[in-house]
Amino acid sequence: MPVDQTATTLVTGFDNVPAFARGLVRDLRVRWALEEMGRTYCPQLLDAFAPRPEGYRDWQPFGQVPAFAEGDLRLFESGAILLYLGEQDERLLPRDPAGRWAATSWLIAALNSVEPMTMQIVNLDVFQAGQPWTRDARPSAVEMVRARLASTENALGDKDWLAGPFSVADIMMVTVLRNLDHTDILAGFPALSAYKARGEARPAFRQALADQSAGYVEQAA
Amino acid sequence: MPVDQTATTLVTGFDNVPAFARGLVRDLRVRWALEEMGRTYCPQLLDAFAPRPEGYRDWQPFGQVPAFAEGDLRLFESGAILLYLGEQDERLLPRDPAGRWAATSWLIAALNSVEPMTMQIVNLDVFQAGQPWTRDARPSAVEMVRARLASTENALGDKDWLAGPFSVADIMMVTVLRNLDHTDILAGFPALSAYKARGEARPAFRQALADQSAGYVEQAA
Ligand SMILES: N[C@@H](CCC(=O)N[C@@H](CS)C(=O)NCC(=O)O)C(=O)O
Ligand SMILES: N[C@@H](CCC(=O)N[C@@H](CS)C(=O)NCC(=O)O)C(=O)O
Repeated sequence: MPVDQTATTLVTGFDNVPAFARGLVRDLRVRWALEEMGRTYCPQLLDAFAPRPEGYRDWQPFGQVPAFAEGDLRLFESGAILLYLGEQDERLLPRDPAGRWAATSWLIAALNSVEPMTMQIVNLDVFQAGQPWTRDARPSAVEMVRARLASTENALGDKDWLAGPFSVADIMMVTVLRNLDHTDILAGFPALSAYKARGEARPAFRQALADQSAGYVEQAA
Repeated sequence: MPVDQTATTLVTGFDNVPAFARGLVRDLRVRWALEEMGRTYCPQLLDAFAPRPEGYRDWQPFGQVPAFAEGDLRLFESGAILLYLGEQDERLLPRDPAGRWAATSWLIAALNSVEPMTMQIVNLDVFQAGQPWTRDARPSAVEMVRARLASTENALGDKDWLAGPFSVADIMMVTVLRNLDHTDILAGFPALSAYKARGEARPAFRQALADQSAGYVEQAA
């Protein structure tokens, strides 16, 4: 099990989060990738409800998780961390240029062409919930995310993964799709739902999710 | 001048766009990078108002611009294309790991931590303009984008560029900040405004913008 409190690969996360955020916090992406690689890492769990530790913004400028370190090298943004890890393991990012750049294109698409539309739904349903205008705002937001899901489903076709073999692109897209778990929107896209389930069935995903949850449970106990 | 109709590096764009979109279409990012490199390319201009050409979605799954090709290699997503070009030119992406991954982290931050909040403003002010709920939705959207701009400005400090020397991270962040040009939001962040102006003053940016506009003008004539 790659969680190891003495490992020198560090990943920040939270030691507790509100119910709606469980299983969605972005350190999951990095844990999943490390788990696929069989690489040990040490989680550094912050208090989500307290001010960030002194100096944390020098590591993660937005005060968010995950941040990542390996020796002297520090990264932030789950997308950048996945690209970094992918380069170290061809099971996560093909070495041939066509495969590598197809996976990179899809990882960025998940972050910039799909996630913003899913987060707009989360914003309306969770962060702004109860504001009277959210009801009127929702139909156009649903239409926008549906359009991006339809394009993604078309591109997936009958393939198992977005860009040839399983890759960091799939870690990113599957975790992006999870942002919609509180809705029935993804159910309108059977192939994409099956794709997400395929990702979530991977042992590395399940271990990463269990380890992330274990961090929360210890805190609650 | 790197625009060359016989070049084998291809970048898709539009041959005309509505007034609000001029200077914001994302092929600008790729043109800017190519211009910094002095690399010739051939723009492939599509009709924004017509269905995409047959097969275009095999290249760009969301039917958007830019898409990019160099020989057999095809990429989509401006973020992926900038990373690809950066690897070919250390003036756009440092070769040392610390510099390279700092710039990559910031490029992804522009795409995933800043651009979605700017696009939410564009969405309210342009795409959903006139909907009665947008007035009530705007304050929280402004608050969210301001928070991200404040973090970015703090991280910039008194540096000229986000991650050491000028890099693809700055091409991305400067073009992301341009999404707010129809508002006075950025004016609240003097150091970030000066940073954006520094990017826009680069000869390569000016040439890229002029070449993008020239494509539109020819169409209008
Ligand atoms: N673009 C960032 C997003 C990270 C993010 O949204 N982190 C959330 C948890 S999932 C967070 O730290 N929220 C607390 C905060 O914003 O203060 C990434 O992909 O790494
Ligand atoms: N995430 C994409 C966004 C590209 C994008 O938004 N393209 C717009 C023009 S700026 C477009 O093609 N719009 C037409 C459409 O969506 O059909 C990237 O960065 O490449």
